[in-house]
Amino acid sequence: MTSFDSMSCSVARTFNVFADPWTALIIRDLSVGLSRFDDLIDDLSISRKVLTARLNALTEAGIVERMAYQDNPPRYDYVLTEAGEELVPVLFAAMAWGDRWMAGKRGAPVVLRHADHRCSAAVTCDECGEPMTAHNTRGEAGPGARRGPGTSRVGDYLAPRKADAAAHGRG
Amino acid sequence: MTSFDSMSCSVARTFNVFADPWTALIIRDLSVGLSRFDDLIDDLSISRKVLTARLNALTEAGIVERMAYQDNPPRYDYVLTEAGEELVPVLFAAMAWGDRWMAGKRGAPVVLRHADHRCSAAVTCDECGEPMTAHNTRGEAGPGARRGPGTSRVGDYLAPRKADAAAHGRG
Repeated sequence: MTSFDSMSCSVARTFNVFADPWTALIIRDLSVGLSRFDDLIDDLSISRKVLTARLNALTEAGIVERMAYQDNPPRYDYVLTEAGEELVPVLFAAMAWGDRWMAGKRGAPVVLRHADHRCSAAVTCDECGEPMTAHNTRGEAGPGARRGPGTSRVGDYLAPRKADAAAHGRG
Repeated sequence: MTSFDSMSCSVARTFNVFADPWTALIIRDLSVGLSRFDDLIDDLSISRKVLTARLNALTEAGIVERMAYQDNPPRYDYVLTEAGEELVPVLFAAMAWGDRWMAGKRGAPVVLRHADHRCSAAVTCDECGEPMTAHNTRGEAGPGARRGPGTSRVGDYLAPRKADAAAHGRG
């Protein structure tokens, strides 16, 4: 079994959270307020076994918390932690891509409303606010870079690390 | 086998592209300029069988294209299509989450440089530019909404659909 967690790569570590699309759908459902095991079963048509496994993995990864709402028998609400809530905008970005490339003629299944306006998600630079693209943005080796399975050669393709002319506390 | 593709949900359809983290890592590698089968093998320590399956699925999904660079024996460069390139910012957003929540003490394996400044990715509203969060953004049923496995109940938790006061061509 490949250990994606041990790769020095935040893409590997993040996508390792998503064992399959169910995980993203569970996070989607929790983010809109579904919180109970049986409601997730009803919504997703997922097997109890797979849902249990995915919720356990998400709890272990610190993305979901169980809150007891009944003692006997024990019953739980599942809610997103702070880390889990911060995954929601990543789902918004994934959703914008799916709306554009996979939704077909019917169009977007869901439209987003931020504050009072309808919108979709953009991935933008947190320094200047411009949209990031595969062409205007490059990676450089960071402090946690390390070669190994999953990152044996990709470092050779990154831009050489540059100091910023204007230091802004992240260099 | 669950058909995530048939769910009326752009999260399901997008994450269905990612059978496992390998797919994200292949897109990562192609985005920085690795393009050959054996280079991907060397970088990722992925099995030839799994890499072949993932590249075929990505080609079928319109995310990767094969370009012959040699005829006999046939050899290919694998490159991202436009749809594939547009997935790269989604990986940037995933990466920012991984840097924050999964990178541990060593810190970010890769830092991004957009134009001339170091930065990381933000997910922002494409109308007003503000960061989108799980709290300030809600979904409403869109034109492609449909109930079914994977979306049987989630529609009940979405905001009721509202017309925008100021029409802007997406309503």
